[in-house]
Amino acid sequence: MNINTNPVRGTRDIAPLEMEIRDQMQQMILEVYRSHGFERIETPVIENLDFLMNSDGGENLKMLFTVLRRGEKLKIHEESSIKDLCDIGLRYDLTLPLSRFYANNKDILQYPFKAVQIDNVFRSERPQKGRFRSFKQCDIDIIGEKSEVAEIELIYTTAKALKKLGFDDFVVRINDRRILSSVIISSGFSEEEVSSISIVLDKLDKIGVDGVKEELIKKGYDQTNIDLLIKGFTNLNEENIGQLTVEEDVSKALISVITSIRSLCQSGYKIIFDPTLVRGMGYYTGQIFEITYGPYGFSIAGGGRYDNMIGNISKESIPAVGFSIGFERIATILLEEKNISRENDKKAAVLYFDEENIVEVVQKSDELRNCGYNVSMIIAKKKLAKQINGLKDSNYKYFMVFGKDEVLKEIED
Amino acid sequence: MNINTNPVRGTRDIAPLEMEIRDQMQQMILEVYRSHGFERIETPVIENLDFLMNSDGGENLKMLFTVLRRGEKLKIHEESSIKDLCDIGLRYDLTLPLSRFYANNKDILQYPFKAVQIDNVFRSERPQKGRFRSFKQCDIDIIGEKSEVAEIELIYTTAKALKKLGFDDFVVRINDRRILSSVIISSGFSEEEVSSISIVLDKLDKIGVDGVKEELIKKGYDQTNIDLLIKGFTNLNEENIGQLTVEEDVSKALISVITSIRSLCQSGYKIIFDPTLVRGMGYYTGQIFEITYGPYGFSIAGGGRYDNMIGNISKESIPAVGFSIGFERIATILLEEKNISRENDKKAAVLYFDEENIVEVVQKSDELRNCGYNVSMIIAKKKLAKQINGLKDSNYKYFMVFGKDEVLKEIED
Repeated sequence: MNINTNPVRGTRDIAPLEMEIRDQMQQMILEVYRSHGFERIETPVIENLDFLMNSDGGENLKMLFTVLRRGEKLKIHEESSIKDLCDIGLRYDLTLPLSRFYANNKDILQYPFKAVQIDNVFRSERPQKGRFRSFKQCDIDIIGEKSEVAEIELIYTTAKALKKLGFDDFVVRINDRRILSSVIISSGFSEEEVSSISIVLDKLDKIGVDGVKEELIKKGYDQTNIDLLIKGFTNLNEENIGQLTVEEDVSKALISVITSIRSLCQSGYKIIFDPTLVRGMGYYTGQIFEITYGPYGFSIAGGGRYDNMIGNISKESIPAVGFSIGFERIATILLEEKNISRENDKKAAVLYFDEENIVEVVQKSDELRNCGYNVSMIIAKKKLAKQINGLKDSNYKYFMVFGKDEVLKEIED
Repeated sequence: MNINTNPVRGTRDIAPLEMEIRDQMQQMILEVYRSHGFERIETPVIENLDFLMNSDGGENLKMLFTVLRRGEKLKIHEESSIKDLCDIGLRYDLTLPLSRFYANNKDILQYPFKAVQIDNVFRSERPQKGRFRSFKQCDIDIIGEKSEVAEIELIYTTAKALKKLGFDDFVVRINDRRILSSVIISSGFSEEEVSSISIVLDKLDKIGVDGVKEELIKKGYDQTNIDLLIKGFTNLNEENIGQLTVEEDVSKALISVITSIRSLCQSGYKIIFDPTLVRGMGYYTGQIFEITYGPYGFSIAGGGRYDNMIGNISKESIPAVGFSIGFERIATILLEEKNISRENDKKAAVLYFDEENIVEVVQKSDELRNCGYNVSMIIAKKKLAKQINGLKDSNYKYFMVFGKDEVLKEIED
């Protein structure tokens, strides 16, 4: 029988060298987050289907992986709906499980609760380059803090983690959903049209002002309103936010975040007000932010305030803000561009000739392990010089031949 | 609407304190394994259903979680089979995905390949105390080594990891599937009966010799054969393994593993020959081992040689041995019994009165972070003394009040 040994379409296996870098990345990120008082939690990959389907997941709900009922609970009929057939699903993000976790555990949690989650999520997306059906997200969230000190802490801590990983010259873009709405509405559009207009505005980076205009006209919107909209956004900047028809608190908090981050970040990145920043997720209610990197403005992190989500689940209105690093994206960049220092330089081989000597070989290897080396015990081949030379390809840096001089030597290039 | 915020039945959320200990456990285990030259890999949680269903998974195949096809590929009929409805499933162990990974990547891997995997697996078991539907396994495997040096390395390294976690007085039990078969067959049973007899023998610890006899009689086996079987196992010990009707290599290799481990382990655990050790999985072909701990002989790790599995997948016969630590079990024991040292003693709070001072509060906190503290910035309440006292419950060890004396103090008991 011919067996297909590929991973599931749209997913991938992670080989040792990449895994080592990913583990180091995760460790470094976790260290920064924990040093800021964030605490890691873990929730199961599977969630009740009802819970997932009733969530504010937007497009992600179309990409759910659902799990078939088991045993007698599975009854198949011609008209069976997915809910008839399935009872659980794979999570599509980490924010929804966090909200459930908080509702379920709030009595034992600190308030405000500062959470880290680093875990895989699943979306049945059409497979394409750089998009996976199983991928890692790395989120921090503050639950229970309504003041913008939460936004400041999230942005500052996320940027610190990225800097520790070797990223620099990245840009934090910030906006507020209420400012976005205010400009759209004051250009003559209705409140119901805000979300449809926002979706087009979100493409501004890619299709430019003319592209946005064209698409809005195609959608049948009024030319005068469109012109007002473009003018409104073009003229908007940090200095005149105060003149907008939003509550004073909104603009004040935004300016407070921008100036605080500027005071805190001595170098490495900058923060800018980006009035056309939209962010896809439906559940944001206040400030939204995104970190872009490199000449193409590649987004490597995103987040915002979602003050209603937890209230919807736990019947208790609780403010919340989150910021998520795109783990797969930064892993790709680190692998391709950066020199993250590997622990490979501790990799040593102890070569031995006779399996009968295994006890002594282990003891000799343990001596090296106690000195900090990662030691593989390898049976020597006849062509020893060639074998030692070949170890380089597997990233060995040192070798020792048991029973010969037993001196640890560097493998020469 | 009333929303169920419990995790899926049979799964659980992991709260911060437990998570911290689990992360530390994982880190310590990984360090030991990497120091022995094992390399971590990761495969997706989801596998192609064909691949899972064609595997040698025995009972685990009855506990598969399967994922519904999506979009146009889903056609529901009255007689639809699970394979018609589903295309992928959740993995039930880490050994099968490892075999697939190896078959798929062997050209870029070292030979022998020494892998670590620490990841969740899924089984739709009837929920009961201590059994979860999603749980973590922690496996090391050596692929491509036919000599018993592989068994020695796996047992020694696994025991080292357990000792590092604070376990002592555990017992490594070892047997060989071929010895088990030999005793059963030489008692008068047929080769086809070996597996059915083994299943009963596996219960010896729980139901005793009389229980085993009784169950075999109930199954209709011959009384004389049963008596011979019991006698055969009772008389069997390290000294007379050589007299068995197995190939000399088999008994020699087993003795070599036992004496090597005894030479290597100065203290903390022992290794014994357990002729009635069976281990459930169908795919073992040679030596099998298990680590038991505590007065009840609780199994905390298990493994063995499976020389045919990878050959079945990749059409190239490749020897393989694996040893798996039951992560959930040792986590439970560590949480309940042991004092694994927590990083909590680095937990500090910086209390501040005015959100306007956030920049200075961050800077002050960063000074402490640079000294190794994990610092949360917390808005001070009116009843400050009571608030500081309450921090103890969240495991804070130190506090500082911003704008007052700004001295880091220990929180008194």
